[in-house]
Amino acid sequence: MSRLWSPLIRELEPYTPGEQPQIDGLIKLNTNESPYPPSPRIRALMTEEAIAKLRLYPDPNSKKLKNTVAQYYGVKPAQIFAGNGSDEILALTFMAFFQQDLPLLFPDITYSFYTVYCQLFRINYEQIPLKSDFTINLADYVKPNGGVIFPNPNAPTAIGKSLSQIEEFLQKNTESVVVVDEAYVDFGAQTATGLVNQYPNLLVIQTLSKSRSLAGMRVGIAIGNELLIEALDRVKNSFNSYPLDRLAETAAIVAFEDENYFVECKNNIITTRDWTISQLESLGFSVLPSQANFVFAKPNFRYASSLAQELREHKILVRHFSNPKIVDYLRITIGTPEEMRQVIDVLKKLK
Amino acid sequence: MSRLWSPLIRELEPYTPGEQPQIDGLIKLNTNESPYPPSPRIRALMTEEAIAKLRLYPDPNSKKLKNTVAQYYGVKPAQIFAGNGSDEILALTFMAFFQQDLPLLFPDITYSFYTVYCQLFRINYEQIPLKSDFTINLADYVKPNGGVIFPNPNAPTAIGKSLSQIEEFLQKNTESVVVVDEAYVDFGAQTATGLVNQYPNLLVIQTLSKSRSLAGMRVGIAIGNELLIEALDRVKNSFNSYPLDRLAETAAIVAFEDENYFVECKNNIITTRDWTISQLESLGFSVLPSQANFVFAKPNFRYASSLAQELREHKILVRHFSNPKIVDYLRITIGTPEEMRQVIDVLKKLK
Repeated sequence: MSRLWSPLIRELEPYTPGEQPQIDGLIKLNTNESPYPPSPRIRALMTEEAIAKLRLYPDPNSKKLKNTVAQYYGVKPAQIFAGNGSDEILALTFMAFFQQDLPLLFPDITYSFYTVYCQLFRINYEQIPLKSDFTINLADYVKPNGGVIFPNPNAPTAIGKSLSQIEEFLQKNTESVVVVDEAYVDFGAQTATGLVNQYPNLLVIQTLSKSRSLAGMRVGIAIGNELLIEALDRVKNSFNSYPLDRLAETAAIVAFEDENYFVECKNNIITTRDWTISQLESLGFSVLPSQANFVFAKPNFRYASSLAQELREHKILVRHFSNPKIVDYLRITIGTPEEMRQVIDVLKKLK
Repeated sequence: MSRLWSPLIRELEPYTPGEQPQIDGLIKLNTNESPYPPSPRIRALMTEEAIAKLRLYPDPNSKKLKNTVAQYYGVKPAQIFAGNGSDEILALTFMAFFQQDLPLLFPDITYSFYTVYCQLFRINYEQIPLKSDFTINLADYVKPNGGVIFPNPNAPTAIGKSLSQIEEFLQKNTESVVVVDEAYVDFGAQTATGLVNQYPNLLVIQTLSKSRSLAGMRVGIAIGNELLIEALDRVKNSFNSYPLDRLAETAAIVAFEDENYFVECKNNIITTRDWTISQLESLGFSVLPSQANFVFAKPNFRYASSLAQELREHKILVRHFSNPKIVDYLRITIGTPEEMRQVIDVLKKLK
């Protein structure tokens, strides 16, 4: 540890992203990526001319992408923000809205990056316990706060809230920003984007890394009232004016335009998920109800950590968390039907 | 302004990037981009397979790029940091090193993003006036401080410091981090990367947006002692784990590998710059000595702001700053020989 560091940095406990190992033949089910490539139309846009234009800065406001997304969700372009993955948007969001006197509220079991942002930006927070069935009880969040954030569906539980439950909460919480982190919404939950015109304190954040198969391209979007988007723009333009490169913007536009491909991929994943859940249950797993592209499953025949290790020896990578409340569970991304058949076959042998 | 914003955000004055207008036939000399496309080898890497892999997260540590840059500069991979443009690296640097009790020191005329970062991260700073000839006098920085940052060459003046002047300063300033922002170093100044093993408090930041023709791809790098790089990694992993997308990393590697192309482009720009300076001087401009891919020139026959406007009417975009100390100057990026001939021809008419 260096005396040259800012004092704050010495105390940081950074986020640990899922492993990205380079192993041939690996079945990689640890970081909730899509098993399908992005829309084949993207290839056509990587032209000689597009590559020559890489000498020029991208549009700092990603206007074309904002227009596309605005049309997709039936809002105005000024209600859209675009960033370098939803993680960057979350970071900017924590700066823009959550540096308040009152504490930020979020679930105790949730995306583990939230506490990291709070450390980095010295944000006061309170973690609200999930109910014993691992669901979020929004009634517990109705109290004075400096902001509220939760994923819908939640991660790593995969359990969603209904839109009416979210709206009921928004009616009660009007004095602080409510962020619904919809990283996994396309796999079975309902998006809250339709509520942004009614609730000026609602910000919806989405990523193109999961349902739109672009984890490798780093694009996230946020949808909300113009004043919320303006705040994000102010922070972005005080941090990094051009977070989206030219090819990322192009790829993101195609991902929203090629609706048929998007629907086909997510439906395939939903079908494979439902098959996987029934197989896991018949193997003696308890599986939480999933509205995501992953399942959160508790093996009743082995310690989850041991099973993760055994799966790894069979070149199957899943995610295990050491937090005691979820130490008995594995988070398993839904891969292709063939990959999931292999996983089930290996589990049958290991049992 | 919204009551929902964090209090800090209400006071921010964000950075204003140069315009990126979409006008056909524009001679765009306002944002210091390269007039040449990136290495043609990049095209070959945008394969069907590379695009299919966009479904997967990139390597959060950009190991391959770090290996390439480490070899290029003769340092260890652990001495390299990679980010989403040098602006993002600067932002992380200000968080990692400059949140100190003592003030950060930087020139009063310099990259205007520095003061914006100080606002965003509540960093105490002192701007040291340039000498009357617009040069940085490093002796003025020898006093207790929480950090020092300056571009070499400086922007928008284009004037560089010699490596021996920088080393002399490093010998006197050992208790805080010294950042040399080498965005424009390849066009005639000497890089300080060779000093990083001797001076553990030296961090060199470079961008691939200028001399490597990749402004549209968003890649920057930093070179320094392992402990400085570790601090940057801690902040990065508390903010956004994957700032570089897969294609950006690939493109950046090629940009460092294709040395012949790099040298050819930068030499062309230097030749064109020297021709442009002689032409401007014969037209009655005072031009500061340039070691960059732009010139900072004072028209002696017209207000600089008026001339910028007249050039714009001729579809030539240059940058003018309203800061009173440099209000008489225009910053003109060096384009292709043909573009600069057109600029000179238009100026002859306007004179």
